[in-house]
Amino acid sequence: MAALRDLISAQQLQKNDVERILSSSKKMEKKLAEKSIRPRNKIAATLFFEPSTRTHSSFAAAAMRLGCSILPFNVSNSSMAKGETFEDTIRMFDTYADVLVLRHPQAGFAQIAADIATHPVVNAGDGGNEHPTQALIDIYTILSLKKKIKGLNITLAGDLRHARAMRSLFYLLGMLGANITLASPQGLEMESSLVRKVDEKFSPQINFSRVPSKESDVLYVCRIQKERFASPAAAEAAQDAFRIDSSFLQGAKKDLAILHPLPKHLEIPPEVDASPHAKYFKQAKYAVPVRMAVLNEVLSF
Amino acid sequence: MAALRDLISAQQLQKNDVERILSSSKKMEKKLAEKSIRPRNKIAATLFFEPSTRTHSSFAAAAMRLGCSILPFNVSNSSMAKGETFEDTIRMFDTYADVLVLRHPQAGFAQIAADIATHPVVNAGDGGNEHPTQALIDIYTILSLKKKIKGLNITLAGDLRHARAMRSLFYLLGMLGANITLASPQGLEMESSLVRKVDEKFSPQINFSRVPSKESDVLYVCRIQKERFASPAAAEAAQDAFRIDSSFLQGAKKDLAILHPLPKHLEIPPEVDASPHAKYFKQAKYAVPVRMAVLNEVLSF
Amino acid sequence: MAALRDLISAQQLQKNDVERILSSSKKMEKKLAEKSIRPRNKIAATLFFEPSTRTHSSFAAAAMRLGCSILPFNVSNSSMAKGETFEDTIRMFDTYADVLVLRHPQAGFAQIAADIATHPVVNAGDGGNEHPTQALIDIYTILSLKKKIKGLNITLAGDLRHARAMRSLFYLLGMLGANITLASPQGLEMESSLVRKVDEKFSPQINFSRVPSKESDVLYVCRIQKERFASPAAAEAAQDAFRIDSSFLQGAKKDLAILHPLPKHLEIPPEVDASPHAKYFKQAKYAVPVRMAVLNEVLSF
Repeated sequence: MAALRDLISAQQLQKNDVERILSSSKKMEKKLAEKSIRPRNKIAATLFFEPSTRTHSSFAAAAMRLGCSILPFNVSNSSMAKGETFEDTIRMFDTYADVLVLRHPQAGFAQIAADIATHPVVNAGDGGNEHPTQALIDIYTILSLKKKIKGLNITLAGDLRHARAMRSLFYLLGMLGANITLASPQGLEMESSLVRKVDEKFSPQINFSRVPSKESDVLYVCRIQKERFASPAAAEAAQDAFRIDSSFLQGAKKDLAILHPLPKHLEIPPEVDASPHAKYFKQAKYAVPVRMAVLNEVLSF
Repeated sequence: MAALRDLISAQQLQKNDVERILSSSKKMEKKLAEKSIRPRNKIAATLFFEPSTRTHSSFAAAAMRLGCSILPFNVSNSSMAKGETFEDTIRMFDTYADVLVLRHPQAGFAQIAADIATHPVVNAGDGGNEHPTQALIDIYTILSLKKKIKGLNITLAGDLRHARAMRSLFYLLGMLGANITLASPQGLEMESSLVRKVDEKFSPQINFSRVPSKESDVLYVCRIQKERFASPAAAEAAQDAFRIDSSFLQGAKKDLAILHPLPKHLEIPPEVDASPHAKYFKQAKYAVPVRMAVLNEVLSF
Repeated sequence: MAALRDLISAQQLQKNDVERILSSSKKMEKKLAEKSIRPRNKIAATLFFEPSTRTHSSFAAAAMRLGCSILPFNVSNSSMAKGETFEDTIRMFDTYADVLVLRHPQAGFAQIAADIATHPVVNAGDGGNEHPTQALIDIYTILSLKKKIKGLNITLAGDLRHARAMRSLFYLLGMLGANITLASPQGLEMESSLVRKVDEKFSPQINFSRVPSKESDVLYVCRIQKERFASPAAAEAAQDAFRIDSSFLQGAKKDLAILHPLPKHLEIPPEVDASPHAKYFKQAKYAVPVRMAVLNEVLSF
């Protein structure tokens, strides 16, 4: 039951790691209600080489709730312009902080940072690769809604090629025995090597679809960006097919839960927010306790 | 004597609310001198959809002095670009923080936020509508300088049409029985429906003027922006008439107090800073204790 | 042994001031390892009128490690656009914070701020003038590496005309009795009036050179910017002559220590990082404890 040093990828996690973090998240939910806080001599540096509001804010809130201070860095206001290497920036913040929370537009840079830093690194999204804390939040949400993962019909819908959070989640769902439907427009499928890896390692039931399924217990929606398509017409058609609106919800399973990592745009119009299926605001609420559990894990309080 | 849940508008305040907040501000002034601080498990999110240095900084300082952490958000570095609605952004920060301090360029958005959020919302300026905490700071300053409001001759001078802080202050001055002179260039008068409302509700003495009055006990100056006028010449003339410089001060009442919400520009040249009439830096100093009192009120410590 | 009120210039320091701050820095190094922190009712405003990552971040980290809160200000997101004077901005933050850490593109502005503010001001770099805390970090690093300054051969290499940190360091090295070599391209020499002042006051051994010397005990490298030269060819030649790469290191003194204020660019290629001579990451590590000592000094905890 050793604590993790870094959290870079969902693929580094064993089942008992996931269970330990989720059980710690539960305790963190309670901690949020406490009146005062124990101030710790710990600094979390949030290094965001790509803009982000909610990932950044929820990591910052999580660190604050643990009694840590936040040292923010974003690339727009940095010395990178002076020609400094990524490696030197990491070395520098490693001398200021006790944990580095890193968002980077390029896949693999969280691992590079972890190789250099003497302090723990938590991957807050690296390019089109992974976003492991988001996936843990998603698993925590599904468990809190459905009390189990195993045997649940879960559809991941949208641009599965570019959504890093979907990749991390797919791996964890496979590990935990969900029946997974991968629904995506042509050309935006989940990377086949990852599908193969999950299949070989965990043999979950995996289906493929061109439309989101109403038969799911959980429908996880992510954005489809226009820029991904050859023509505006193709983009329009795909966005229409993957729009979860009130007409889609007619005939959906009674206890269908709709999740979304947010921010949402046209893929789920505001009319759906009031529906009992809409669980994405509840999901958003779990970001802080789960990220508290992850920071707590790597800081080994 | 119940605490307020939100502070959206001066017009929601009863006289006893104002008295309670001002008396709490007095206590907060003392708290500022304490050596150590009790760290609280509370986060104040400062959501600024419009740039601000001093409103933001003084709210942040106030929250820090109460032992809270600050979660800053400004629109330049946000997910709004991804097409998220204002409502969703509020919902999101409502899951991270214990109080939302909101500045927005559009009138009414503080109320919209308060309707959505489960946590208290404090209006830090919404378009041309209200800026209630500034007005409370102003009232606190006048009381500390003059020991009373009732019967005092107070001139509000400048662009009264667009200055939200002036609108909030006008309402509170009416409530507290000041003799009010509204001095503004043509076309930049205080909105007539608000004048009528204050008149009907509190029947204070209200005068109208085209120039700032030297006969005032308190002269409250705000900026007149060139862009508000049809011609550069009209702008020039209005700015000249409303400039409070050393020549204006010749013949002013001996104990005239000049206030300004700051930042000031050409409307009060630096030569006036050394005058005994200049009280705007003292006024600025009260921003932190009064905002501490407001945050303390809505957080119900 | 009175504490300093402000830290504006290395030239204001007496030898016993330097010794006291360095000895306090040693204690701060130990403090960094403590588990919890005593929260203080103190706010450090970091007023950066010029972008900076590491000076800002290390000052912020230092203040956090002392249990203070940070109130950040940078000019891009400020009311300066509304035409406010520098003086008014200082007055304003003086009402929010207990210490002002100031970076400004113009020489002398730290002193202007100190003249206005009622709270201590720490100069975090003012134009081409001074950067006293960086110089204290450098002295601390050399002492930790070499156990002495007196009699040590120390070369300052690069653009000595524009590097404020070099000016502050040169003064302190003179005071502490180093043998100093000033190595710079033509036209980028250390200002002669400062050389004269250090010579008259402390009479250290001062040599001048057009190339960095391999005979040094300490080689302190700073950037040479292309824009400083009349022609690209002249820039190229100077940058080549001052590049510290592995071929330069062949034949260098066995215990030569290379320092650099960072961020480094082409003047020290990454190949040198692994060399035992490279001490700049160690130097960077001392930024936090030394800045803690300085903040502690002026805040008089």
